[in-house]
Amino acid sequence: MHKKKGILFVLSGPSGVGKGTIKEALLKTMNDICLSISATTRKPRSDEIHGEDYFFVGENEFEEMIVSDKLLEWAEVYTNRYGTPRGFVLEHLNRGSDVLLEIDIQGALQVKNKMPEAVFIFLSPPNIDELARRLCGRGQDSQESIDLRLATCEAEMAHIKYYNYVVVNNHIDEAVEKVRSIIQAERCKLNNLSLG
Amino acid sequence: MHKKKGILFVLSGPSGVGKGTIKEALLKTMNDICLSISATTRKPRSDEIHGEDYFFVGENEFEEMIVSDKLLEWAEVYTNRYGTPRGFVLEHLNRGSDVLLEIDIQGALQVKNKMPEAVFIFLSPPNIDELARRLCGRGQDSQESIDLRLATCEAEMAHIKYYNYVVVNNHIDEAVEKVRSIIQAERCKLNNLSLG
Repeated sequence: MHKKKGILFVLSGPSGVGKGTIKEALLKTMNDICLSISATTRKPRSDEIHGEDYFFVGENEFEEMIVSDKLLEWAEVYTNRYGTPRGFVLEHLNRGSDVLLEIDIQGALQVKNKMPEAVFIFLSPPNIDELARRLCGRGQDSQESIDLRLATCEAEMAHIKYYNYVVVNNHIDEAVEKVRSIIQAERCKLNNLSLG
Repeated sequence: MHKKKGILFVLSGPSGVGKGTIKEALLKTMNDICLSISATTRKPRSDEIHGEDYFFVGENEFEEMIVSDKLLEWAEVYTNRYGTPRGFVLEHLNRGSDVLLEIDIQGALQVKNKMPEAVFIFLSPPNIDELARRLCGRGQDSQESIDLRLATCEAEMAHIKYYNYVVVNNHIDEAVEKVRSIIQAERCKLNNLSLG
């Protein structure tokens, strides 16, 4: 019984919910899933490597990618653009590798539109109070920015219905374990196996 | 976010594949799933407790359960009858407890008919040779009985399409971990959570 084709797992949720932390912890315990690499128009930092941290591309190249539908999703953040190259993801899926994409909710909805067969995991804060505490806790954000994020979070929770799974991030270890279980379980689904 | 209703997990597969072993190992690591208890017309052994090992019932009572649709499935094995009481399962599901039912393939197909919303897990031997080795290995079976089981197994593999998941029992620990992941993942499915 062999795996036919890889599965795309989309890990998403409101800003501040802990997507990045969960993703990092997950990758430490799983070596059989490959992380999607984003394209960006932002300049590389000194320690960043093209094709590893990001695909660093020019404005024109990025626009060409948008126009020719080479991005599963994209967004503009503070004058820089970020997107998920479809080619990189498909290449790995076709090779039989599973791919993990950590992304915000707007991005996930774009991916849902282009690849509805992907597995969508919504990482949810235990409640809005807890999210506020975390946003304050990390100390990077102004009160105004925190208020905006909380309002956005409430609005974003409405999109939960487009997801296959919901993982409540009460405790990081438990949340990581749940995401790992979802990946494991999806690999056991009949339509993800070829018998022989 | 609370669980609304329990989920019924049906662990099934060909005879000799290791269903019982997997079930026992699983129950040791999970204390939040409840094992379905069968009704039987066979006489209790000295160490068996009514309502714990089995519900021991008379022939007439068992027939009444069949006629009044109180069994999710039943079968006759060497003049004794065994069945899964629907009431016990529903009671636990309605209370929010998940229920595990370990059962042969014919039984699983009956449950699929009565409760198609259950989660069906097919435990598969790595291949027929391996199953033969296991059946011989346990030394309880005659050659004739082994041959019959192998032929049955081949026929039963055709029913795999009615299942949601397939777990290949290569190594017990890995198989247990996969079943555990499936249970965990199903609990994270959006329709198994109520938001609030």
